[in-house]
Amino acid sequence: MYDRVILGIDPGLAHTGWGIISQSGPRLACLAYGCVETCAGQDLPERLKKIYQQIDAVVTRFKPSFAAVETVWFGQNISAGILTSQARGAAIVACAMNGLKVEEYTPNEIKLAVVGEGMAEKEQVQYMVKKLLGLQAPPKPDHAADALAAAICFTTHYSVLNGKESRK
Amino acid sequence: MYDRVILGIDPGLAHTGWGIISQSGPRLACLAYGCVETCAGQDLPERLKKIYQQIDAVVTRFKPSFAAVETVWFGQNISAGILTSQARGAAIVACAMNGLKVEEYTPNEIKLAVVGEGMAEKEQVQYMVKKLLGLQAPPKPDHAADALAAAICFTTHYSVLNGKESRK
Repeated sequence: MYDRVILGIDPGLAHTGWGIISQSGPRLACLAYGCVETCAGQDLPERLKKIYQQIDAVVTRFKPSFAAVETVWFGQNISAGILTSQARGAAIVACAMNGLKVEEYTPNEIKLAVVGEGMAEKEQVQYMVKKLLGLQAPPKPDHAADALAAAICFTTHYSVLNGKESRK
Repeated sequence: MYDRVILGIDPGLAHTGWGIISQSGPRLACLAYGCVETCAGQDLPERLKKIYQQIDAVVTRFKPSFAAVETVWFGQNISAGILTSQARGAAIVACAMNGLKVEEYTPNEIKLAVVGEGMAEKEQVQYMVKKLLGLQAPPKPDHAADALAAAICFTTHYSVLNGKESRK
């Protein structure tokens, strides 16, 4: 039916965006997207468990073969970076335990793949995600749009890696 | 048989130390310890999966009710901290998915609980772990000793929290 189904993930402890896209030749389509939200009031293990369980449920439902996960970036806010990294670990384990091949991309790589400009603004990314996936409106929340952008980034790298024609 | 069984974890991407202790009234005993090792040559998802699977296997075998996990500390080495945090996320999810109550302790809290001094040297921690658990020799590798120290730390906090007599 599709050449491949890809799960994109924008990891975070409070919000882990996810998006599922299909690729059929040069055509991309959005199958679903959403965001795992956890409460600051809950303890860390419960929050990580929720991220693991919900990503596991998305994988079970949509059966992607690949995952594209945004890398963690944090400037001076080391505490936030530690929390995001732990959430990212939980999400990646959910993918790896389900046998997905997981690729990692930096925010700049994702922007470059989607907008053609590594320093693109958030609104440009959202606009291009909407356009490339033929959506009626930009996906909300932003975390889901970023997750779909990661999945789109995978398709450009995968095409290049496998010597196939690019979708562009 | 025991009042409780506790899993201590010293998380790290290359080495995740683990240790299982039992507490029966004031008596502590070491049931097992070890270290999950992952190769730098493997990709991150495979390494995180191995940590998850091996901690899951330890929990399945020894059936602890509690886990004590050392917090991540990294000064200026942010890259190392990101990797350790992701490994920590994988280990905590393995505990949480098995229904363990997970507590977190800083390195200083652990040293204070085991040695009585928050700035204690590594050798002092190893000596006291050996002494408190009645071992013939200090546990090796160091990561396993640190994991057992985290589990011992839990027992002192648990006693205080529950208004019970301290083991000392």
